[in-house]
Amino acid sequence: MKNIVIAGGGVLGSQIGFQSAYRGKNVTFWLRSEESIGRAKPKIEKLYMTYLAELDHAKAQIGKENPDYARALIEDFANISPEEIDKLKEDVKKAYESIKYETDLAKAMEGADFVIEAIAEVADVKHDFFKKIKDLLGDDTILASNSSTMLPSTFKDDAGRPENYLHFHFANHIWRNNLAEIMVTPETSDKVREAVEVYAREITMIPVVIKKERPGYLLNSLLVPLLSAAQELVAGEYASFEDVDMAWKVGAGAPRGPFEILDIIGLMTPYNLAKYKEGADDPSTMAGKIVKMLEEKIEAGKTGVAAGEGFYKYDEKGRKIK
Amino acid sequence: MKNIVIAGGGVLGSQIGFQSAYRGKNVTFWLRSEESIGRAKPKIEKLYMTYLAELDHAKAQIGKENPDYARALIEDFANISPEEIDKLKEDVKKAYESIKYETDLAKAMEGADFVIEAIAEVADVKHDFFKKIKDLLGDDTILASNSSTMLPSTFKDDAGRPENYLHFHFANHIWRNNLAEIMVTPETSDKVREAVEVYAREITMIPVVIKKERPGYLLNSLLVPLLSAAQELVAGEYASFEDVDMAWKVGAGAPRGPFEILDIIGLMTPYNLAKYKEGADDPSTMAGKIVKMLEEKIEAGKTGVAAGEGFYKYDEKGRKIK
Repeated sequence: MKNIVIAGGGVLGSQIGFQSAYRGKNVTFWLRSEESIGRAKPKIEKLYMTYLAELDHAKAQIGKENPDYARALIEDFANISPEEIDKLKEDVKKAYESIKYETDLAKAMEGADFVIEAIAEVADVKHDFFKKIKDLLGDDTILASNSSTMLPSTFKDDAGRPENYLHFHFANHIWRNNLAEIMVTPETSDKVREAVEVYAREITMIPVVIKKERPGYLLNSLLVPLLSAAQELVAGEYASFEDVDMAWKVGAGAPRGPFEILDIIGLMTPYNLAKYKEGADDPSTMAGKIVKMLEEKIEAGKTGVAAGEGFYKYDEKGRKIK
Repeated sequence: MKNIVIAGGGVLGSQIGFQSAYRGKNVTFWLRSEESIGRAKPKIEKLYMTYLAELDHAKAQIGKENPDYARALIEDFANISPEEIDKLKEDVKKAYESIKYETDLAKAMEGADFVIEAIAEVADVKHDFFKKIKDLLGDDTILASNSSTMLPSTFKDDAGRPENYLHFHFANHIWRNNLAEIMVTPETSDKVREAVEVYAREITMIPVVIKKERPGYLLNSLLVPLLSAAQELVAGEYASFEDVDMAWKVGAGAPRGPFEILDIIGLMTPYNLAKYKEGADDPSTMAGKIVKMLEEKIEAGKTGVAAGEGFYKYDEKGRKIK
């Protein structure tokens, strides 16, 4: 798959598109209007600078025992030379220059091998998009949504090719967090799933496959129970959040404790999950205690790393203040 | 607290005792009989050899960027010299030579500042032990159990000094896994809890406090939900165990995936947890599917790393075979 259309130039759409272009794909962003293009372009410019800075950072890591580098940018770090990293910087430049922006849906879809939808997380907006492109696609065009919260079967029929439809989910900062989660429906063909796995590897992502639909893909299906258990321990006054983090880091050898992770995610996300649980408005239940704990933080403006404070305090670069 | 009595010379008792002696405590093992002493001594000898080998290993790690070493053996690794490590090897030798073994309960308890119970995980056996030592202790003697599965309030009154009683829980291979979980009852005095926190730090453990009783301490309260979620994903046929591990390692930056952790723990433990859940004998429920998945492995002798195979295969040194 060579010709890629990304629908939407938001946080994740821009990253998926830029990473694809960096790995030599022909990338066209379809955006609703010239104003949308005006909002997407600065994101792409910022990614351009970030990728160059990451490659410079990686260059300084050559020869280190446990190098810290953006894994989606360099495939075989152990054997890379500074000159090869300079070549990769050329690839970043080429990617930046090669990206096309299009507001005309028919023009954008012309010759598309793979369309990745990364527009607003609103079901009707997505339905509308897939229905509109139905007659603009080639027979083999593969379609994916990056939706975090919705299931592929919800949209599979909209463009009239359920065998070519699946979900392809990325995490923020994909140049470092290079997991790509593929979720199929019973109708997705094996050939299509395999083609998307190949595509993921081509753009230096690590694909995992969810063979049967379920909310949360794999990573969140694991992370949510861990973070919920951690919140129960603290909201239930069994332990301090510092001790919970310490137990996890020392006991499981994890790089970050649950409350450090919650601060990175931002407290609004767990709050929105918690407040729809049974008993959430009753402070005598565990759900109610968790809501209360998060609400107090949020009302004080302590919503996480981005706000400078969540459970811990952070400096302007997002580093934890000890 | 200087004079420590460890009741029981099993896997964990021997480790807690040896680590305490290594850090300069006067350690006496109370064991039921000469036969028990005969079973405990080879464990202590093995720990002696392990500690020496670990210190040699640590010496070779000096100057490395991300040194791998046994954290309970060296407090300030960043500033240690090879000569200082040699001195620590002397401490290992001194520890080995200083440990006392006693079958007479009254003699063992004489002058004890801290008694750590690490006998069989059977409530009646523990009750019996604490009742027997009731009149053999000084007024200030602190009492702890290393029980994994029982709560401190179960035993707090047996020795007639609930304010001096708490649980002090260690993980296997404490010289590397240096988390010490302290669980109190409402009656445990703050002074006693603080003294045990100090003791934990003195023997180079990292203490965390569970302020209100609950099963599982902190680490297992976090680990069990993560491992359960992982088992659901695979037993429910949502994904392969390899993809679940990959998602966790790439997505959460964790050193090990849930199925690698399950292999290390051994599959009997999650199996025993799963088979008492509601629906465990009905293969149409999630609990039943998890039981079936684990049962098939266990019946084939694939019980984990120690057996050479669990979800993954291992060589004779316990290293994963790729």
